[in-house]
Amino acid sequence: MEAFYEYIDHNADRFIQDLKKLCSQPSVAAQGVGLRETAHLVMDMLGGIGADARLIETDGAPPVVYGEIGQGSRTLIIYDHYDVQPPEPLEQWKSPPFSPEIREGFLFCRGVADNKGDLVSRLQAIEALQATIGGLPLKIKFVFEGEEEVGSPHLAQFVDENKELLLGADGCLWEGGRTDMSGRPELYLGLKGILYVELRARGASRDMHSSYAPLVPNPAWRLVWALNTLKDEEDHITVDGLMDHVTQPSADELELLDRIPFEGDKIKEDLGIPEFLGGEQGTDAVRKLLYSPTCTICGMVAGYTGEGSKTVLPNEARVKLDFRLVPDLEPGLVLDLLRKHLDSRGFEDVDIVSMSGEHPAKSPFEAPVAQAAIQAARAVYGQDPVVYPLMAGSGPMYPLSAALGIPAVSGMGVGHAKSRIHAPNENIRLEDYFRAVKFTGEFLRAFAET
Amino acid sequence: MEAFYEYIDHNADRFIQDLKKLCSQPSVAAQGVGLRETAHLVMDMLGGIGADARLIETDGAPPVVYGEIGQGSRTLIIYDHYDVQPPEPLEQWKSPPFSPEIREGFLFCRGVADNKGDLVSRLQAIEALQATIGGLPLKIKFVFEGEEEVGSPHLAQFVDENKELLLGADGCLWEGGRTDMSGRPELYLGLKGILYVELRARGASRDMHSSYAPLVPNPAWRLVWALNTLKDEEDHITVDGLMDHVTQPSADELELLDRIPFEGDKIKEDLGIPEFLGGEQGTDAVRKLLYSPTCTICGMVAGYTGEGSKTVLPNEARVKLDFRLVPDLEPGLVLDLLRKHLDSRGFEDVDIVSMSGEHPAKSPFEAPVAQAAIQAARAVYGQDPVVYPLMAGSGPMYPLSAALGIPAVSGMGVGHAKSRIHAPNENIRLEDYFRAVKFTGEFLRAFAET
Repeated sequence: MEAFYEYIDHNADRFIQDLKKLCSQPSVAAQGVGLRETAHLVMDMLGGIGADARLIETDGAPPVVYGEIGQGSRTLIIYDHYDVQPPEPLEQWKSPPFSPEIREGFLFCRGVADNKGDLVSRLQAIEALQATIGGLPLKIKFVFEGEEEVGSPHLAQFVDENKELLLGADGCLWEGGRTDMSGRPELYLGLKGILYVELRARGASRDMHSSYAPLVPNPAWRLVWALNTLKDEEDHITVDGLMDHVTQPSADELELLDRIPFEGDKIKEDLGIPEFLGGEQGTDAVRKLLYSPTCTICGMVAGYTGEGSKTVLPNEARVKLDFRLVPDLEPGLVLDLLRKHLDSRGFEDVDIVSMSGEHPAKSPFEAPVAQAAIQAARAVYGQDPVVYPLMAGSGPMYPLSAALGIPAVSGMGVGHAKSRIHAPNENIRLEDYFRAVKFTGEFLRAFAET
Repeated sequence: MEAFYEYIDHNADRFIQDLKKLCSQPSVAAQGVGLRETAHLVMDMLGGIGADARLIETDGAPPVVYGEIGQGSRTLIIYDHYDVQPPEPLEQWKSPPFSPEIREGFLFCRGVADNKGDLVSRLQAIEALQATIGGLPLKIKFVFEGEEEVGSPHLAQFVDENKELLLGADGCLWEGGRTDMSGRPELYLGLKGILYVELRARGASRDMHSSYAPLVPNPAWRLVWALNTLKDEEDHITVDGLMDHVTQPSADELELLDRIPFEGDKIKEDLGIPEFLGGEQGTDAVRKLLYSPTCTICGMVAGYTGEGSKTVLPNEARVKLDFRLVPDLEPGLVLDLLRKHLDSRGFEDVDIVSMSGEHPAKSPFEAPVAQAAIQAARAVYGQDPVVYPLMAGSGPMYPLSAALGIPAVSGMGVGHAKSRIHAPNENIRLEDYFRAVKFTGEFLRAFAET
């Protein structure tokens, strides 16, 4: 692989120019800005490395850029997204968000870490491999979508309509990845799912003077009573039947948890809290963070919320809840359990509005795609990655992995712990970028040989 | 009393001019507008009918206009306020709020019903009595404050500092009063007290991504669990010890309840609710409305409350609660019970911010001041008033009545059911105004003879 490494170093300036070009093209899914233009640009980049690329349309969605390249006994899906978060608030950017700028070894612009940097670095790794080891030793299928930052509402439909293209792959390399505060690379074998709902209760036809409270129903109280049945004061979810569907981590997964460096004291100090919930510490805290489903009040509102007092009996109350879903919970199941739970307690009057849902996804540590990533990390970063069997967050991994029976991993991307993704002054370290290109080359070679 | 009635009819135009003059002077307590000017104007009006009048200062408050007039075996306190609600929203007024205008037998302007009309009509009744029956047969003490519309925060202090002026009075005629939808005059023997608090819970030092929910406390959940211990799903207040302090209505009061015409079906239809809480109807509904203490969520807010979803773990939650207090609950007691209740259940972390408090007040049906009002109502309105032993709302009656052992009644003022107090286009019917002047004369004579 010496020639491969040299090729990357030799082409470093051009690689950064190509990355800047893609980052200069706005592609904000939430605002419908520049998505088709960006899809064409990405398709051209795929063509540039010799891939057979095209746009695949799904009703109501920006196109998926699909491509294929290489031949071999192994087939890998590479998933990235070409859309980015909105750049606002603009006034907090030191340089314009879509005018990439290098300052002191960092490249600043919207989307460079999440996730255009990953996307471009992977194409460049393939270019470098082809140029130095004489062709690709595996088949790669690219799936680059344009709606990740708005929850990938059409990804499952895309997979469903294009199953014949994807079935039978041996693994999937997911977007994302970064080094932690201490420079250790992180590898994720899965993520939680999510169900986001709004509960709504209504009372009289209008807000009332609160002197009517003895006679007129108060929807804020209805929601308090309903919510109180969902989780107890020890933070245990008490939705009927929900916990029965939770699969406990395997012995292998518990072993991985043991190896995760978790800086609980630093986190508590940073958050200004004396204890984590339940007084959890160390590996127990990590296990709870990754393997507990959640039921979180993300927002609630009713009546008068301004300064001072107003004696009003509100006629509407709303609560936003998210459930983070560990295996084997899934959004439709939880929505169904929640409705039945409320109905059986007389809360038929509380409406549930489902706002979004994603399945959890988890791949085994032994999967070739995971082992190849670990082997490549050792070669490039000089150390084992920190392996997370799940992440506490959620993402659209399920349709492309668990639903198709294809193991997937996320990690060793271009980011670092202070990349400020989703925030102003998003950035990557140039040094990390080239390590990510090299990692991808090592990973592809290792995966081809599994 | 024939000459008295004739005097009023003869001076009708001048009476309305005097009322217009006071109403033309803005006096908005919430905005600190025109209070001292109005106090002087009222003091001059008192002087005009021969009263010994002065301004009494209390630290931090606009002055109380205090006056005395007449001699007799009975002493009556007349309470009114010279401040008014803010006139906003201005664009909804058909004529400017401080430019009184008569249209089709109604006088429109801010404060004419609440409560400058009552104040002026009472002075004019005294003028007419003096001019026609040769002096006043009782002693009257006027207490006209300038902070009623902001909760009378200094009235108790005023009474405390000026007890020697007020002690020993035989009754108190309170502000307010109106005829109901069917033209029946209403008489109130008391009102509920109130305690208004804000409960606040805090979590981490900042809002967090909701994936941290397994480890980081959520103040919105803390408030839900705390609230749930305060009232059960059958709407019973479950604050430890609170209900032990509630006095049940006497047999006499229950008899009064029976006589109150309560149009429950019309109210339910208007509010779009199929049933009152607990399915209450008729006299049971009236009893619950007037004799139940309440614990009402007037407002609550935490986290993200906009459109769509945001996966946030809030770091603060706030709930505004009002407790309407029936005899013998009082604000300090309830505040103390609430704190102890929460502490004993492990909610020491939930802060209680007390925002305002008023005691309940209640006078007996047999009190001379009540009997005189009923007798006067029969003479002027040709029918018995609808007597409410309590009102569902609250007010600052306690310091001037219950605290001093002086029975008080509110009623037979200048308003009607659509006077739109606190709202644009506040108004009175001129016909009602003169009936109120006549009522006051009959009432004073009757009360002097009790």
